[in-house]
Parts: sequence; structure tokens; C-alpha cells
Amino acid sequence: LDDARRDDSQRRLGVWLIGAFGSLATTSIVGCLAVAKRFAPRIGLVGDDPRLAQLGLAPLEAIVFGGHDVRRSSILDEAVAISSENGSLRREWIDQLRTELTAVDRRVRTGVVGAGGGAIRALGAPAGDAEDVPARGCIRRLSEDLRAFRNSERLDGLVVVNLASTEPPPTTAESTESLDALESRLDRSTAAQVRAGTLYACAAADSGAAFVNFAASGSCLTPAVEAYAVRATVPVMGSDGKTGETLVKSALAPMFRARRLDVMSWVGFNILGNRDGLVLSDESNKRSKLGTKDGVLPAILGSGVRTRVGIEYVESLGDAKVAWDHIHFRGFLGHPMSMQFTWQGCDSILAAPLVLDLARFADVAMRRGECGPMLHLASFFKAPIHCDEHDLHRQYERLFDYARRTESKRS
Amino acid sequence: LDDARRDDSQRRLGVWLIGAFGSLATTSIVGCLAVAKRFAPRIGLVGDDPRLAQLGLAPLEAIVFGGHDVRRSSILDEAVAISSENGSLRREWIDQLRTELTAVDRRVRTGVVGAGGGAIRALGAPAGDAEDVPARGCIRRLSEDLRAFRNSERLDGLVVVNLASTEPPPTTAESTESLDALESRLDRSTAAQVRAGTLYACAAADSGAAFVNFAASGSCLTPAVEAYAVRATVPVMGSDGKTGETLVKSALAPMFRARRLDVMSWVGFNILGNRDGLVLSDESNKRSKLGTKDGVLPAILGSGVRTRVGIEYVESLGDAKVAWDHIHFRGFLGHPMSMQFTWQGCDSILAAPLVLDLARFADVAMRRGECGPMLHLASFFKAPIHCDEHDLHRQYERLFDYARRTESKRS
Amino acid sequence: LDDARRDDSQRRLGVWLIGAFGSLATTSIVGCLAVAKRFAPRIGLVGDDPRLAQLGLAPLEAIVFGGHDVRRSSILDEAVAISSENGSLRREWIDQLRTELTAVDRRVRTGVVGAGGGAIRALGAPAGDAEDVPARGCIRRLSEDLRAFRNSERLDGLVVVNLASTEPPPTTAESTESLDALESRLDRSTAAQVRAGTLYACAAADSGAAFVNFAASGSCLTPAVEAYAVRATVPVMGSDGKTGETLVKSALAPMFRARRLDVMSWVGFNILGNRDGLVLSDESNKRSKLGTKDGVLPAILGSGVRTRVGIEYVESLGDAKVAWDHIHFRGFLGHPMSMQFTWQGCDSILAAPLVLDLARFADVAMRRGECGPMLHLASFFKAPIHCDEHDLHRQYERLFDYARRTESKRS
Amino acid sequence: LDDARRDDSQRRLGVWLIGAFGSLATTSIVGCLAVAKRFAPRIGLVGDDPRLAQLGLAPLEAIVFGGHDVRRSSILDEAVAISSENGSLRREWIDQLRTELTAVDRRVRTGVVGAGGGAIRALGAPAGDAEDVPARGCIRRLSEDLRAFRNSERLDGLVVVNLASTEPPPTTAESTESLDALESRLDRSTAAQVRAGTLYACAAADSGAAFVNFAASGSCLTPAVEAYAVRATVPVMGSDGKTGETLVKSALAPMFRARRLDVMSWVGFNILGNRDGLVLSDESNKRSKLGTKDGVLPAILGSGVRTRVGIEYVESLGDAKVAWDHIHFRGFLGHPMSMQFTWQGCDSILAAPLVLDLARFADVAMRRGECGPMLHLASFFKAPIHCDEHDLHRQYERLFDYARRTESKRS
Repeated sequence: LDDARRDDSQRRLGVWLIGAFGSLATTSIVGCLAVAKRFAPRIGLVGDDPRLAQLGLAPLEAIVFGGHDVRRSSILDEAVAISSENGSLRREWIDQLRTELTAVDRRVRTGVVGAGGGAIRALGAPAGDAEDVPARGCIRRLSEDLRAFRNSERLDGLVVVNLASTEPPPTTAESTESLDALESRLDRSTAAQVRAGTLYACAAADSGAAFVNFAASGSCLTPAVEAYAVRATVPVMGSDGKTGETLVKSALAPMFRARRLDVMSWVGFNILGNRDGLVLSDESNKRSKLGTKDGVLPAILGSGVRTRVGIEYVESLGDAKVAWDHIHFRGFLGHPMSMQFTWQGCDSILAAPLVLDLARFADVAMRRGECGPMLHLASFFKAPIHCDEHDLHRQYERLFDYARRTESKRS
Repeated sequence: LDDARRDDSQRRLGVWLIGAFGSLATTSIVGCLAVAKRFAPRIGLVGDDPRLAQLGLAPLEAIVFGGHDVRRSSILDEAVAISSENGSLRREWIDQLRTELTAVDRRVRTGVVGAGGGAIRALGAPAGDAEDVPARGCIRRLSEDLRAFRNSERLDGLVVVNLASTEPPPTTAESTESLDALESRLDRSTAAQVRAGTLYACAAADSGAAFVNFAASGSCLTPAVEAYAVRATVPVMGSDGKTGETLVKSALAPMFRARRLDVMSWVGFNILGNRDGLVLSDESNKRSKLGTKDGVLPAILGSGVRTRVGIEYVESLGDAKVAWDHIHFRGFLGHPMSMQFTWQGCDSILAAPLVLDLARFADVAMRRGECGPMLHLASFFKAPIHCDEHDLHRQYERLFDYARRTESKRS
Repeated sequence: LDDARRDDSQRRLGVWLIGAFGSLATTSIVGCLAVAKRFAPRIGLVGDDPRLAQLGLAPLEAIVFGGHDVRRSSILDEAVAISSENGSLRREWIDQLRTELTAVDRRVRTGVVGAGGGAIRALGAPAGDAEDVPARGCIRRLSEDLRAFRNSERLDGLVVVNLASTEPPPTTAESTESLDALESRLDRSTAAQVRAGTLYACAAADSGAAFVNFAASGSCLTPAVEAYAVRATVPVMGSDGKTGETLVKSALAPMFRARRLDVMSWVGFNILGNRDGLVLSDESNKRSKLGTKDGVLPAILGSGVRTRVGIEYVESLGDAKVAWDHIHFRGFLGHPMSMQFTWQGCDSILAAPLVLDLARFADVAMRRGECGPMLHLASFFKAPIHCDEHDLHRQYERLFDYARRTESKRS
Repeated sequence: LDDARRDDSQRRLGVWLIGAFGSLATTSIVGCLAVAKRFAPRIGLVGDDPRLAQLGLAPLEAIVFGGHDVRRSSILDEAVAISSENGSLRREWIDQLRTELTAVDRRVRTGVVGAGGGAIRALGAPAGDAEDVPARGCIRRLSEDLRAFRNSERLDGLVVVNLASTEPPPTTAESTESLDALESRLDRSTAAQVRAGTLYACAAADSGAAFVNFAASGSCLTPAVEAYAVRATVPVMGSDGKTGETLVKSALAPMFRARRLDVMSWVGFNILGNRDGLVLSDESNKRSKLGTKDGVLPAILGSGVRTRVGIEYVESLGDAKVAWDHIHFRGFLGHPMSMQFTWQGCDSILAAPLVLDLARFADVAMRRGECGPMLHLASFFKAPIHCDEHDLHRQYERLFDYARRTESKRS
């Protein structure tokens, strides 16, 4: 065991971020380095829970970053911009990490916009080649980027995490197609006719990398895409990182259920000002997001509760996000009462440690030879696939059970 | 099994409420009858959870009410006043329940104010006899009231629930005395020198009734009083029903812990306008309440969090209670964020179903021959005795485990 | 002067409510009677301000109600429903006012739905005759209802107040047409081709009644309709009673302006569950409402502020309305700060006294021979016509100035 | 006129800050320089209102800072600390202003703690000489500091602004004594027996400087101290800068009054973490603050409203301040409704521009030969002396009237 542990600590874990120049990726990368080098306090990493120690998660020091993006930028520039806009990344950290960040920048490759990317395209001319090439060729190019990363960095494990802006939902046909139908669709389409999420997920599978969909984009993990991953024996999980308002919902709704209070309506409004918000001001992209956010409450409280989630882009807020929720419930004798909450968080700060956690959990799963959905990671997602348990506390129990099973295996 | 169940349903369960003319007792009594007779919807009863079905809780129809109070009033009058002040009890229910309520009123006996009851006395001249009598005589009188109730109503079980206004905390000597020391204190004191909570709890034990302390008053369940109850082989539990702000804290704080967010401060302010609030505007009575409310967060989040609970009496609110909580926390990289919530509840409405639940759970414990602290009922209390688990979800797991153990015993 | 005053107090003021069976009309009628008869406390009447005493407003006792509605119902039934749903009208008042309410019910006539009333029609089959008759015929019928009311009740003055559900906005052509164009449109259209608001407003003018548009429906007071009223020498005012969130905005925004704070965004969300909310869940009707709500902030704070008003129908709330506003502003050195407020009001209760006030102020204007827009009443409206002053405090100064001018005239 | 204006712009206005090393003074000084040099945007200066242009306020460029403090520190160090703690002062501004800030630091002299300064002393050993010297000697020393500042900097005008931490309230005797009694008290006391506010205010008067009490400390402007200033023909004003929660109250309460809504209770809780908050956690110092905060609502809404202001020190908040207010009111027919607001501001950022404004308004008053209370500045204070108008909007009207009177004088 000790030997294995020592090996673990010298592992090199590749974490490949789709949307590498976005605020979340930038915060994940700068933050990982800043915590590893003890510049910043170590807060918010679920993997630090002592009850998960036996999993032997890769240390932050073991992580090597690379990624895809459709915009031309640099992590260094993005970090500086975040620093001056909302102060979540300190300028002095960035200055001290200049060498490391430049190295990551050299490992970012051109991504793909794919079908339905109108709102994303509108953000600025995305990089060139990929649109009229065949889908198969595009997947091949993306997976070669991954393989080259694995080889040049001598990685022991590789996890792809999708942090790209939310895409419109997949069509009904895409959501229900078989693996064969997906294969034949890939054969006859150009890259521009296929959702980017599908292209990235297939490329990850082809290169033997685990795939985590942190975005709301459903095209990353349709049943067919998932079957594609299972065939390649890689683990996958998603969708839509549970960072703020939905996290609170999943912690609070069980309280109402446990006390058998009758929640009549639970409506929430989110205002946010980052690029994610801008993309979401496109109605079709917003639909994906509302879809993943809206499933939590009925799953816990039953279908009788009237829910509604509003999202508005308010530029002045930048990366700050404010959510207001109003819960109207009846108690004993039908008496109406209410609860309101306001959540004021910084999206990237809430999400970044989850990205690092998920990559490390996926790495464990790969080491253990697991493939397909990592159900023990449900607590991280607004819409965990194959999982109708949305109670945060029970989701956590599954994670601890997974860790306990590890222990008993080892002993 | 079927036979046993049928018997259960014909049980007569006596529920004796200390503070019988208070809003909570009145709401519990009128509400129990209104739900049993299907006037009002059945909401907010934890015991209705299907996972607890095997416990065979007494049906609401089986409950017979009686009680002690130090004020002269009637449940009927109190119900009418509640109806016109906050509308939680509908006038038409009261009209239809006139006979039943009058019957309960006939079963209310004069209570005892005891030591430290200045704020309670100030509410209006309490009823006469009890103050300069010896403590032992007072306890005897109270327990005879209970025995008479049991006999005249042909009860199968009897549970005493303390709903009286919060008393000042017990002295340090009282909190740490032995059973022998308590006995000798009772021998040499008058009733006016002993906290009422102690007198009631001893009377319950002497008459073989279970005792539930729904108030914050610590004198009901000091170690010595608890030993007194154990010696009498009756079950007990408390203290301080967890109905509103603290309930939310115990559901929400585990979320921050699970995500390893660093909660720096969590301060709350409560405003309320009922008699409970008026008594709490007396500083020494308030101390009891703040004591029970303030333990939850450190138990879940550790001692580093700065907590503070303010309570203010605001007459215009009546039985409505508003609590505002502000949670200041640091996330990844030490970034500060915050959450606020406002809870707008009606205290009696939130508490009344818990009173009915607790009486029925205590009845089960008595039937099963259990005595001493009912640890599986921790989720009902702000300061559950002998329990350092304040995570609401884990507290509920204990209740479900208790029910499961029942099942396996039976099968 | 004393003689005139005595006469005033014996005046009979007719108040004709469009939407007579709605909650606002019902609350206005029951409330006026309940206050006049001293059943209920006298709160919320702007006209009771001592600084307005010299205007000699008609006393509540002088008011005689009638109205139009497209639904079949009765004020008595609506009042009972309101009483049991949200308790704002006490059952005992209704019981004691049965005779008076029945008398009002006898004075309610069938209204008209007009063009664009899809959402209103969907609420239930509206009453029959009016739709395919010529617009002129419909106006004639409506104004005859008014004249009959005036004669049979021997009224000294008559004010029509539009409380009907919000209609879709008028078309651009309608908003900009001349009086001649309106006349020729009325000549060639059926009633079903003209917005109901226009039909009612013309009928009021034709019968010599003042007209107050308390709804958001712009068709009541287009320039052409206003010219129609001026020609008939009747006073008019509107639009959209300022009762809740917008009222707060107009009181609070001047503070930010006075302190020269830079309000970057001010977004609000309203949730409500009454019939008004249901009609507003129709997108085209909602557009009218958002239009009137959204002008206040830019008028006070300039065009730089990003505003947004969301409205959602949440049935469980009934007539309660909850609005949450988030104000994001920069102070000295560009430092960002924020303010949030939650307004929890009962729409009908907030609006009803304004209806009574407006009718009485319009009555004064008629007595004084004024016609056209009553600009001194701007403080009552979200979108006061011909008025770009939205600062609540300055709007009030205009009202007090008007009263002072009265005084100097008289002396 | 043009000549006078040109002269004005070359004036040198001395602004002497008591509590020069505090966050508010530091923010005022750094901010004034940063805005004057166009590093930072120009926001939050009331004096920039075009309607006040004719007053000819001194430009920010004309201001020369000096001050007293009882702690040993430097504005440069304090600015760096503020920058890293809450980011309201940007590091790059401080770096570019190093020369200017060092110059100000050289002009800071040792202050005086005076009577009742226990909480202030506890913050760290204050500088030495002043405590057992006679009060007269202390005043002489302080006023010599002011005269030396005026001479060495060739100032055209001098304003002293008290920004020191809140002192305990003056005794009743002090609050009511005559000028003669004050004189004789100063004759026979040591500096340690007199409140610091009194010593500073007398020193300002003795040196011919205007005096503005921005703190809540009542000892600065007792009737006797005011008479002392009037005798010296200098203008004075105070007390307690109206920056946050109270500002909102004074803007919002008039709305409830105008609509004749019956505010039953208005309770607020403030949490804050700066040095001001720490000093306020001392009960006697807090009393001063609560006194000035609590007068606004009764003045506007009448004595029937139950008010309560809570203040709690919550270290994690630093200079951020959060206030939650709950307003419970009755509308038409006595129906209860409520409004809540949360104000999240940065105290120093809200207050600093007011300090600069007040100094410049006081300078105008001196130039115009005015002395005694500057009543037109009431809008800046929670407890404006000699002023029972707390309606923010009317207070502003007084300021604009003052400016208009200037105009008519000039023309």
C-alpha cells in the first residue's frame, strides 16, 4: 500500500479543459497553482474531506493543464482581466506564476464551435479550420491534441472537463438515438452540423480520457455518446456543476420534505454578468440551463410544487452572481408561510475547486478500471446522469460509501 | 401483527400540556381535532412519513388532551383570540369543535410558577395555592392531577409535554447536582424555590408519564432530573423544539461543511410578537433561549465560526416570526461570499405538529419499555440532550434507523 | 364658503368602476363602506392629509358605486371569496354590508371585451351582446349606462375609473392617430375591433364623466382619446396605479441621484397570484405593464442604468404580491455596492384607497371646471401622462401646490 | 464674478481630520487625490450637482490635508492595509500618490483621548503627553497645531472634521450646561477629565476654523460648545454622517407617510467589522450611535412606530457593512404588509465624499461670513443639530434653496 501511495504522489495527472480561456478554466488553473504553492489558503476542495483520504486523490501538485478554446486569448491575459475586474485572483499570484501560466498557454489548442453555436460565435470570431471539415476528421484532430498532450507531458492519467459555454439542447432525435445512429450521423456530417459537446466527448473517448461535463450542454452525454464512452471503457459524468442556487436548493428542499411541509411554489431569479450570462441571454442556450436547474425540486418535493427559474444578464455584476429564491409553503392546518434567500457568490470561485475535485475523482476511477457513469459524483451536478437522487445529503452519502468500499477492497 | 395494530388504533393516548392556554397548546389541541375530523388538511406531521409507518404511531383520533396552566383562561377563548389575531385557526373550526374544546378546558388544572418566574408572573396574576407549599407537596399535587387524568380517561399511555414560557437557566449548582442532591433540595425547599420545569418533570416521572421538554427551559432535564426519570423507567427528551431559524441552520450548515467552505460568521436576528417573545424580552429568560439556539452551528461548522443570535420583541408581529440570517463565508482562494435568508413563519403552526408527533413517538417508546433519553428524536430539538449531532439530515437518519430496527424486531 | 362646504358634504358622488367584479373594485367598494361605517380603521387615504383639507374632497359617505364588467358574478360573491382566500376583507363586514353590496350589484352593467382581449376572454365566457355591434353603438350603450346611473342616483358628479385587466398595448397607429382619425376609425369599426379602453373612455367623455385609467392599458389615454375628452371638457388622468414596487422605486431612486451614486443596474422581479397576474402571463398583455413600470428609473437616474422588470404568475400567492429588487451601484472611487429590497404587499389593499382618492380628486377638478390631464395627480401613477417627473417627493409637492393654489383662490 | 471664480480656484483649503489614520480619513485623503488626478472616476460628490454650481465650491485640487490622531501609524500604511483588506483603494493609486501621502503624514499631530475613552484606549497605547495636562493647555496645544498648519501651508480657509471613533454620550450636566459653566469646567479640569470632542471643537473655534462633527459623539456640539463656536464666529455642523441604513430610512419613511400607511414597527440590524464597529461593541459608545440613529423614524412617522436599531461587530466583514431592516405596516382596512431591505455598503466609501463635500460647504459658509449651525447641511447627518426635519428630500430642498439664495445675492 505504501508503495502504491508513493507512486500516486508522483503521478502526473493531465487535466484538459474545454473552454480553456474562460473565467472558470482560468480560475481553476491559477487557483490550483496558487494553492499548490501555498500562496492561497486551501478552501473549498471536497476531496480534502478526511473521510475521502483513502481514495488517494492525486495531489494538486500532480496536475498538468492543457485545453481547447475557440477564442484567441491567453490564460495570463484572462487572469489579469479577472484580477482587475473582480479581484478573485490576486495580481501578485499571477505575477509569481507567469512561467507556469505561459507553459499552460502553449498547451491550448484550437477548439470547435459546432452546430447551434450562434451565441458563442457572436462573442467574437472563433478560430478557423474546423467548421466545414467532416465530423470524423474534427474528432480525430481533437483526440490527437489529447494524445499529443499525454505523450509530451508523460501523463499517467488524462481527464477532459467541459467548461465551455452552454450550448442549445440536443434535438429530440439526438437525445434518443442509438450508438449506431450516432456513428452514422458522424459519418455523414460536417463538424458544423454536430454539437461541439458531442465532438469533444467522442474525442476524449477515442483518446482514452475520462470525460466530465461541467457545462449544462446535454449533447455531451446523450445515451449514444455515453455508450460511445462505455465502449471505449472510459468513465464519464455530468452534467452542469452544482455551484450556487441549485446547491442550496438541494440542501434545503429535503428539510421541507422531512418536516412534511407542503411547498406550493419555489421560484428563483438569477442575475449574473459574466460571459456565461451573456451566452445565456440567448434563449436557446438558456433553455439548456433552465432544463438542468429545474429538475431538482420536483425530484425532492414531488411534482405539485410550482417552480420557475429566471436568469438575467446584468453586465455590471461581472462574475458575481446573485440569486433570490422565494419559497411559499403551507404548514399545519394549511397555514401559508414563506422563506426567501439571497445567494451572492462568485461563480468561478465556487466552481473551480469542483473542477479540480472532479478531475481527481475521475482519475481514481480510471486507475480502478471503472467505466461509464460515475454515480458517486452526483453531488457535484445539477443534473447528474442516471440519478434521480437530488437530496444533497444523500448524494454525499454515496460518495462516502464509495470511499468506504475502497477501504474494504484495500484491506 | 394485525391484531396488535388494531389494538393500537383503539388506544387512548393522554397528552398533557404544560402551558395549556398558550398559543402553542391551543393550536396543538384545536389543530389535532381539526385534522382528525378532516376539517383541515393533514400537513406537517413528521410521523406521516411512510418510512415510519411500522412504528404504529397512535392516530390523532386516539389523543385525549389535558394540562396545567398558571393563567386563568380557556382554550376556547384563546382559540378565538388566535383566530382573529392571525387567522391560523379558522373561526368555523372552533365553532364546530366547541364541545370538544370545552371538554379539554375542564381537564386543565392549576400549574406552578416556581423560582425565577418573574417575567411569567408579570404577565398577570397566576393562580393561587402552589407557591409557599413544600416542593414535595407541589410535586405530589401535580402528579395526582396526572393520575386522575389517566384514570378518569382510561388512558393506555400518558405523555407530558412542556410548552410553558422559557424559564431562566438553572443555576450551575442545579445543572451539575446528583440525584441525591436533587432529592435533598426537594426535601428542604418550597415550590417557590424550585424551577417549575423541575417540579413538572418530577411529577411526570412519579406518575409514570413520559416527559418531553419542548421549551428551552434547562431545569426540566438537568442530569439529576434525568436520573430521576430513569429511575422511574420513563422516557424523556428535549430541549427546545426546532421549528424555524434553527431548523434551517441545521439543514444548511451541513452544505457548507460538505463543500468545505469556510464560514466566517453566521449571525441571525429574530423578531417576534407573541407571548413567548414578551417573556424573552426579559434578559434572564432570553439567556436560556440563546443558549439552546447557539449550539447548532459550532457543532456542525467547528468553533471558528462567529455566531450571534439576536431576539427582539416586536408586538405588531403577533404570532408571526421573522428571522434574518447573514452567512459570510470564504470559498476557493479565500474569496469572500455571502448568503442571506429570511424565514417568515408562524411559530405555533410550525411547532404544533411536532408536539403531536413527539407525544406519539414517546408513546411508542413507552409501549416498547424504553426509558431515559429518546435519542432518535434529536431532529425535533434545538438542543437535543446527549447528542452532539446537529446535522438535520443525520438526525433524521437516526429516526429512520430506529424505525428500521423496529421492523427487524417484529419480523 | 361655509355654505359651499355644507353642500359639498351632501353631494352624491358617482364612482363607476370598469371591472366591477374584480378584486380591486370589490375591495374598493367593501372598503369604502366599511371605513365610512367605522367598521374598519381609516388608513391609507392620501386625501386625509391635513395639507389637502382645503380641497373639500367628497366624504366617503357621499360615494355611490356602479360599474361595468364582462364576467357574470356579484360583488357579494367576490367579497366572500376574497375574505376566505386572503382575509383582507373580514367576513363580518361583508355580512353587515349585505344590503349595500346587493344594491351595488344591481347597478353593474355588462361591459365590453374589445380588440386584443384574448387573455381576458380565456378567463371565462364574457357576457354577450357587445362584440359585433358597431363601435359607435357600443359607446352609445356604455354612455347610456352612465347617464342612467347619474339620473337614477341623482348624482352631483360622476367619475369613471378603469380597473379592468391590462390590455395589450395600442398599435403604433393608434398611439399616434389624430382625433379625426380616431373618429373615422370608430365610424367604420365594430366594437370587437377597438380596444375596450378606448370604448370606455369615449363613453365616459360622452356622458360628461371624468375618466381615470388605473390600469396599464394605454388605449384608454392615447393622444386622440385625450383630445376626445378635452373636447368634452372632462378631466382625465392615468395610467397604471403606482401601488408597490414602482412606488418604492420612485421614493428611493431620488436618494441615489441626490447622493450622486452611480446606479449601474436595478432589476426587479414580481411574483403574484391574482387574476391580474394570470392575465399578465399572456405575453402581449404583459408588455403593457412592463412598459409603464420601466419608465420610472431612467427618468430619475438617466439612461445609463440597466433596468429589467420580471413578472411571474405564482398561483399560490393569491392576492399577495412579492417583489424583489436588486440595485447595483458604484460609489466614491467606483467602488461597487448593492441594496436589495423585498416588498410584500396585497395589491388590492394598496390600490383601493387610491381609487377612492382619485375619484374624489377628479370630482374636485370637475367642480372647478378643469378639463384634460390632472397633472397634480402624477404621484398616483406609474406612467403619469404628460409628466416626466417620476420623483415621488416632487410629485407630491405638485399635489400640495395644487391644494395651496385652491386656498389662495378661495381667500 | 469671473475674477472671484478664478480666485476661488486658486484658494488653498485646509481640511484637518480628527482621526487622521482611520479608514475614513485615509479613504478621504487618498480618494480626494485619486479623483483630483483623474485616477479614479468622480462619483458620489453631492457638491457636483449642477444646481449647486453657483456656490463656487473649492475644487478638490485646492484641498490640503492635515490632522490629529491618538494612534501611531501612517496614512500610507493604512491605505495599503485597506487596499489589501477590501480593495476599495487600488494599490496602483497608492503607489502613484506616495509623495503626496507622505507629505500628509508629516502634517499629522498627536491627538487627545480625553474622558470616557476606555474603548479607544484599548485599541492600543495612544500617544503620550496629553492626559494629565490641564484642559486649557491641551486646547491651546491643539489649536496651535491648527494655526501652524494654516500658516505653513498658506491656507485661505480651514475646516476641522471630526472622524474619530464614537465617544460615550456627554453626561446630562454637560449636555445642558451654559457657556460659562463650560468655561469654568475647562478651567478646573485636566484633559483626561473632558471628552475629546469638546477639546477638539474648542481648539477649532480658538483657531478660527469651521468645525464639522461627522462622528456620533455628542460632546462635540453640546449647546455650550456651540455657543463657544458662535462667539468665535465660526460655522459648525453635525452630528453623525448619514451614509447608509439611516440614509435609506430618511428617503423611504416619507413614502409611507405620504401614502398614509400605518408603520407599526421598523427594526434594523447592522453588522460591521471595522474599527468603528469594534469601538461600538463597547456598550457606552454604542449608546451614542443608537441615539443618533434612532431619531429619524419618529420624526417622520410619529411616535407610534416601534423602532429598534441593533449593531453587532462581525470581524469577518471588515469595512463592509450590512444592514437589514424590516418594516411592518398596515394599509387600507388595517391589512398588515411588510417591506424588508438589505443595504450592503462600504462605510468609508460612502462617507468619504461627504467629508470632502462638508469641508467645501463649510468653506463657503466661512467665506460668506456665516457662523453657527449650517442648517442647510442637514441632509448629511443622522442627527442634524437644531433640525427636526429628517425627510431626506426636504433636507435637500434646503440645500438647493441655500444655493438659490446665493445666486440672487450675487446677481
